[in-house]
Amino acid sequence: MTRVRDLSEEQILERIFPLLPRGSATLLGPGDDAAVLAAPDGRFVVSTDVLVEDRHFRARWSTGYDVGRRAAAQNLADIAAMGARPTALVTSLVVPGETDVEWVTGLAKGLADGCAPVGAGAVGGDLSSGPCLVVSVTVHGDLEGRDAVLRSGARPGDVVAHAGVRGWSAAGLALLEAGLVRAPLSPVPVEVSEGVHLEDAWEQLVSAHLRPEPPLAAGVAAAEAGATAMLDLSDGLLRDAGRLAAASGVRLDLDPGAFAADRDVLRSAARAVAAAQGLGDPGWGPGRSDVDGMLDGWIWGGGEDHSLLATFPSDVELPKGWTAVGRVLEAAVDGGAPSGATAAEGAAPAEGAAAAEGGVLADGGVLADGGAPSGGAASAVSAAPAVTIGGEAPAVGQGWDHFRS
Amino acid sequence: MTRVRDLSEEQILERIFPLLPRGSATLLGPGDDAAVLAAPDGRFVVSTDVLVEDRHFRARWSTGYDVGRRAAAQNLADIAAMGARPTALVTSLVVPGETDVEWVTGLAKGLADGCAPVGAGAVGGDLSSGPCLVVSVTVHGDLEGRDAVLRSGARPGDVVAHAGVRGWSAAGLALLEAGLVRAPLSPVPVEVSEGVHLEDAWEQLVSAHLRPEPPLAAGVAAAEAGATAMLDLSDGLLRDAGRLAAASGVRLDLDPGAFAADRDVLRSAARAVAAAQGLGDPGWGPGRSDVDGMLDGWIWGGGEDHSLLATFPSDVELPKGWTAVGRVLEAAVDGGAPSGATAAEGAAPAEGAAAAEGGVLADGGVLADGGAPSGGAASAVSAAPAVTIGGEAPAVGQGWDHFRS
Repeated sequence: MTRVRDLSEEQILERIFPLLPRGSATLLGPGDDAAVLAAPDGRFVVSTDVLVEDRHFRARWSTGYDVGRRAAAQNLADIAAMGARPTALVTSLVVPGETDVEWVTGLAKGLADGCAPVGAGAVGGDLSSGPCLVVSVTVHGDLEGRDAVLRSGARPGDVVAHAGVRGWSAAGLALLEAGLVRAPLSPVPVEVSEGVHLEDAWEQLVSAHLRPEPPLAAGVAAAEAGATAMLDLSDGLLRDAGRLAAASGVRLDLDPGAFAADRDVLRSAARAVAAAQGLGDPGWGPGRSDVDGMLDGWIWGGGEDHSLLATFPSDVELPKGWTAVGRVLEAAVDGGAPSGATAAEGAAPAEGAAAAEGGVLADGGVLADGGAPSGGAASAVSAAPAVTIGGEAPAVGQGWDHFRS
Repeated sequence: MTRVRDLSEEQILERIFPLLPRGSATLLGPGDDAAVLAAPDGRFVVSTDVLVEDRHFRARWSTGYDVGRRAAAQNLADIAAMGARPTALVTSLVVPGETDVEWVTGLAKGLADGCAPVGAGAVGGDLSSGPCLVVSVTVHGDLEGRDAVLRSGARPGDVVAHAGVRGWSAAGLALLEAGLVRAPLSPVPVEVSEGVHLEDAWEQLVSAHLRPEPPLAAGVAAAEAGATAMLDLSDGLLRDAGRLAAASGVRLDLDPGAFAADRDVLRSAARAVAAAQGLGDPGWGPGRSDVDGMLDGWIWGGGEDHSLLATFPSDVELPKGWTAVGRVLEAAVDGGAPSGATAAEGAAPAEGAAAAEGGVLADGGVLADGGAPSGGAASAVSAAPAVTIGGEAPAVGQGWDHFRS
């Protein structure tokens, strides 16, 4: 094994650079003080997310390749959630000197594979030693002449729709924690048929956790179809839906029937995890089993799926990859939706206006994105909930506790 | 003292957001999945640098404010070195839970003050807990219709010119290490006259280390005046000049007389540091004192000045802030200048061309920038030197050893 500290910075970079994709928007790649990227639209979108060892990934489960895949995926999903096409990313990497160089080259391969579906480039970065692994990615995208799709545009009467997996990442994490699937997974995904990368259904769930594959094309498709609001689901469906509802000043009512198929997909994993934890299937509680509670937790509360939630006018035919999961209602009368809902709209407020955007800012957004999956409670869902399920306020038994798991 | 772990992420963000400048290019600031920035030129430049506690700064000397100032400065300098105007930055911050919240708000103030001279915005970021302080900044700039000024455009006959301080950061670090100036400095700079922020000359040197003030306007001015090549000096004058020479396939001959005034500015600090180290002024060595050796080390080898080095056609009148310090010569015959010198030129090579850019890439550039100041040796200066001083190869006694100090 060659360790990072055994090589010079130049030697490490010589191994990394050939692995990085250039991307079609790259006018000047790595090697100068800065890269130069095309922005034919005259605007660009930018977002940043950081992954910290033992906070966002565990080195015993995640290879460098996995962390690269995840870092790319969750950043690219933020661009897709604006309705933009990802163009390029830059990466800051902090590594302890004893790290295997293969971890670092694996990271580069993971970034490259994560970028491949959208043709994004990896155009620069920075490298430093440090006491633990930290991967900070900043990603850019092109709006291609479209308006950015904000969180704040949902209107009563709109359809709520979802693209991507639901609860898979949380289920995969639970399988890992229960010791039911061994990680790290094989160095590169085994594609057994188009879009199916692993033979075993449980391993697919674990892969969704370690190497999420956000529905990036669905973001652009939603924007083109006229989506009124959109966001990336990183902290759980209910919590992030609450942010969209709050930013738009509306209430979202989700249809539990729309998630029945997800329960079927996840049920064998939930049964196995429950058995490993010594829980029974017909379990405690009024008419609900432990397995049902676990499924609720994964689907409604599970983080890091990096799927997309959007709202569309009711007369729009949903584009490919999108499923209707609810509808947008007027905000509850007693103040469930915070004020400031429209502050993020419109272009270029006057200097200093940022401070006035508290209503939206306080809900997280760019700075809150990608925080630890075990982050705080879903504050957006207050006594008068901004998100309901079949018209009812989400109950603790429906997974609320799992937000803190 | 309120610690980071005593507050929710939302509470921390509520304290940070009002401190961040919006910037004139910001179409959508923090609060959504991504920010939206104007790129009226149809292109933008991007660079990223990471600062790690105990690698790039020491918490006992640097306040959060200082680290914010430095993070902004060294990133903005990379944009200026392309001849671009900085527009906006995003920041990923990793903080231990026991960190004083004032360190974090100080960082935001430092970023804001660092951005103020060029009106850049701070438009987003990410926040995570972690075992040590890590600040990763990605910065963007607008070329305003100009060509990017690369490292590779210097031509024999050009004038070599410099803007900014020379050796101040290394001198300031030496003063801190010798215990001759107490840090942290006062919370905000004390401006005693325009551009002079501290009364004491030694404290100015320490401030140049803790809170560098790159000559950002000089970057755009150089591009407008027709600079043929330019780069940010982060790893020492000789080492970075060697990178420019290598990328351009030329030799740079620096005029030692052009740096005489710098020696005078730094001499009192060098004498004091030498005395503190038990060295004499008329010292060992053939005709050179320890103080002279220290001055050589600071001026030729000292890192982190974040000044700018550029080359101009000889008939150009140097713009404000620039001083002629040498001339560009043909590369030495026996291979002092590596191949690949022009690989970074031109727009959008075909997909996969990145791997072919090794000549330039291996010299560092975007990925190498901002590494630890104590990084490896100046490999670009080989037996047939790409940089000479008054026609002579740099000698060890002229500061070479200090590269590793």
